[in-house]
Amino acid sequence: MDALRVGLIGLGTVGGGVAQILTHQAARMAHRSGRPIQLTRVAVRDLTRSRSIELPGTQLTTEALAVATAPDVDLVVELIGGLKPARELVLAALNAGKDVVTANKALLCEHGPELFRAARERGRCIAFEAAVAGGVPIIHTLGQAMTANQITSIEAILNGTSNFILTQMFQKGAAYADAVAEAQALGFAEADPSMDVQGTDAAQKLGLLTLLAFGTRVTPDQFLVQGIDTIDLDDLRNADELGYAVKLLATARLVEGQLEMHTQPTLIRKDRPIARTDGPFNIIGLTGDVVGTTWYSGQGAGGLPTASAVVSDIVDVAAGRAKTNFDLLDLWGNHPPFSLQPVHEINRRYYMRFLVEDRAHVMAEITDVLGRNDISLASVMQRETAEPEDDTIPRQKYVPLVIMTHRTTEGRLRAAAIQLEKLGCIRTPWVCMPMEGIPL
Amino acid sequence: MDALRVGLIGLGTVGGGVAQILTHQAARMAHRSGRPIQLTRVAVRDLTRSRSIELPGTQLTTEALAVATAPDVDLVVELIGGLKPARELVLAALNAGKDVVTANKALLCEHGPELFRAARERGRCIAFEAAVAGGVPIIHTLGQAMTANQITSIEAILNGTSNFILTQMFQKGAAYADAVAEAQALGFAEADPSMDVQGTDAAQKLGLLTLLAFGTRVTPDQFLVQGIDTIDLDDLRNADELGYAVKLLATARLVEGQLEMHTQPTLIRKDRPIARTDGPFNIIGLTGDVVGTTWYSGQGAGGLPTASAVVSDIVDVAAGRAKTNFDLLDLWGNHPPFSLQPVHEINRRYYMRFLVEDRAHVMAEITDVLGRNDISLASVMQRETAEPEDDTIPRQKYVPLVIMTHRTTEGRLRAAAIQLEKLGCIRTPWVCMPMEGIPL
Repeated sequence: MDALRVGLIGLGTVGGGVAQILTHQAARMAHRSGRPIQLTRVAVRDLTRSRSIELPGTQLTTEALAVATAPDVDLVVELIGGLKPARELVLAALNAGKDVVTANKALLCEHGPELFRAARERGRCIAFEAAVAGGVPIIHTLGQAMTANQITSIEAILNGTSNFILTQMFQKGAAYADAVAEAQALGFAEADPSMDVQGTDAAQKLGLLTLLAFGTRVTPDQFLVQGIDTIDLDDLRNADELGYAVKLLATARLVEGQLEMHTQPTLIRKDRPIARTDGPFNIIGLTGDVVGTTWYSGQGAGGLPTASAVVSDIVDVAAGRAKTNFDLLDLWGNHPPFSLQPVHEINRRYYMRFLVEDRAHVMAEITDVLGRNDISLASVMQRETAEPEDDTIPRQKYVPLVIMTHRTTEGRLRAAAIQLEKLGCIRTPWVCMPMEGIPL
Repeated sequence: MDALRVGLIGLGTVGGGVAQILTHQAARMAHRSGRPIQLTRVAVRDLTRSRSIELPGTQLTTEALAVATAPDVDLVVELIGGLKPARELVLAALNAGKDVVTANKALLCEHGPELFRAARERGRCIAFEAAVAGGVPIIHTLGQAMTANQITSIEAILNGTSNFILTQMFQKGAAYADAVAEAQALGFAEADPSMDVQGTDAAQKLGLLTLLAFGTRVTPDQFLVQGIDTIDLDDLRNADELGYAVKLLATARLVEGQLEMHTQPTLIRKDRPIARTDGPFNIIGLTGDVVGTTWYSGQGAGGLPTASAVVSDIVDVAAGRAKTNFDLLDLWGNHPPFSLQPVHEINRRYYMRFLVEDRAHVMAEITDVLGRNDISLASVMQRETAEPEDDTIPRQKYVPLVIMTHRTTEGRLRAAAIQLEKLGCIRTPWVCMPMEGIPL
């Protein structure tokens, strides 16, 4: 059988891994694909840079567009990330009759429908296992293994950088900034980590999973997205003491026919698998109406785990099953999409930490506001503070107060927040995080 | 597109679930498959039994062979289990030009090569996602998502019944027999649970995974297989105290170019995901040379989770990708298989619990035997026993002694065991289990 000729755009950490596997494991890949896979062209930013990898028989160029449209390329692998020029390159490749493999979740989240449509019109396919959760095969699983099911819930840690930082903070007692610096030093965070720590990356990945699982297109501006960049070590320790771990949790689930979606730092009860997933790992819990809940975890980022996912897509294209998979994914709006649950109706438990004035009646004022908003308390924790030795020494002005609520709505919580602010006895801003899992 | 016509053999817990999904979710299945799926024939054991499920348009019969070869059947789904008549039915179906979906790990473990060859010769395919780990898509993952990798290690809990029983014993302090009875009452164990509790079921599943991951055919009689049927609550508690959980662990891994394989109750350090997988759940850790380690877990048995896997195979057949998947699986011995590591070379840590005579010099005698066999001790635990109030009261005759070793070989361990037996100060049989994970 003829070789599948691959044009690779981007030779960074992931691209380098892909090139290495295709070149050094050519026999393995041919065996798995049923035909040889040949890396014919690679587009790089700088031809003069020295590289550790030897690519005999591969033409290196800085002309990405030429690779995307070259006659000796059957499949274009886009690994440069970002929207520009990735969108133009993918469209050019599809228009030139190439299949496309990409790891670019930002691109698919933003321009997915346009690109998917273009592929379909040309009879081509786009494979994107590597766009979500690195080496964890969640796209294959949703697209093929779960076909008996209506997915009813996805809950996941989808950003390895944030999870690494939270783990460092908690395990080493590190401040947020120090944990970020360590993540950068170890290669788990980029020089500008804002996409990761602000929750955007996880929200884009959740958007893609939601499109596949529910047939609904949702972009991060349409649902609650918060990052870990305001997390305080105190809250990780409080959570631990109360039996919870704090994780950047991405959730999409069906609630009475609507989609509840959010990506936020969340307290998760320690007996749940997500709470016990530490470091640069991702984990995804999929619940389906037939299978129940199944869990998938592994390294969510890094050159080789992501390269493993990219290469599995390349093999699928070579073997001829990528097109079938692509055509049968729920990308086409064949049924009416689920609508998003309005934010104020989202129903959860909450953890709140206030710094309150240390004077009489403060507790009564706060719990009165919560009570009037129908928010019922599950637990209250105010630690004893040092008692001054005599009355001439002023007491500490603010003391921490930690409250966990029973289930309530985001709407009630926000109404209460406005009233709490007016009380004047609470320092702003205070901390508020949702919780998952009933009290033990 | 023409409907895929399905003939189902077996309408038990799993078969009933499959029939229900195909019938009641016909629109969903057509959407996921790209064509209608029609359940034309079902073979049952007893036509007169009342059933909760309505199957309009489906012909019920007791003639399984007629279903396997019927002209209005394109795909035969074999869900009766066991070797006879399953083997004959599957061969008849393949010879009649049908594709086959089966959940029968015993059949594939015993007759896999014959059946796979028959399918290949006829240009048909066999799909068997449901044969291992119920609703956890480990066959899809090995066959498609991990194609960039040489798998280097599989470690797994593959028998939900055994895991449920171990969890019950530990959490409720139940004796083995009581936990088995409860598992039976709750439907997690069959009336005759011997295939499950003796380790055969898990070993057959490990054999199938090994064929796929390493291209090596291994049957349970060729490697170390022990079940949980001799486990004592004392050992679960000792393990817990030492920082370990006891699980029926199935392992296949490459060690210096050979395959180390065993399925045995094993002490696993509590910080590992396998140690924290409780109840009727399965978990599989796959390590590949590119992706690192990824984890998969979910309910490993039960009607609906297994039906979910069967239906995903049916959809793959309907969509036309099952044949591609089947043809590219490592089932054909295209490369020289890895040979099994000789049992006496298997290198692990061990937990041992002896009941020893409570007299002077016993500890010296035992540790002398271990030391002379080059077995080095990681920890020794002998609890204080009641001291008789005066010398006229005899002391307790036997006291428990728990030893954890550093890494040693099964060969040394067996040599030591022969010598220990000769000492006469140890009650036989004693308890010996391998351990996973270095000391914390």
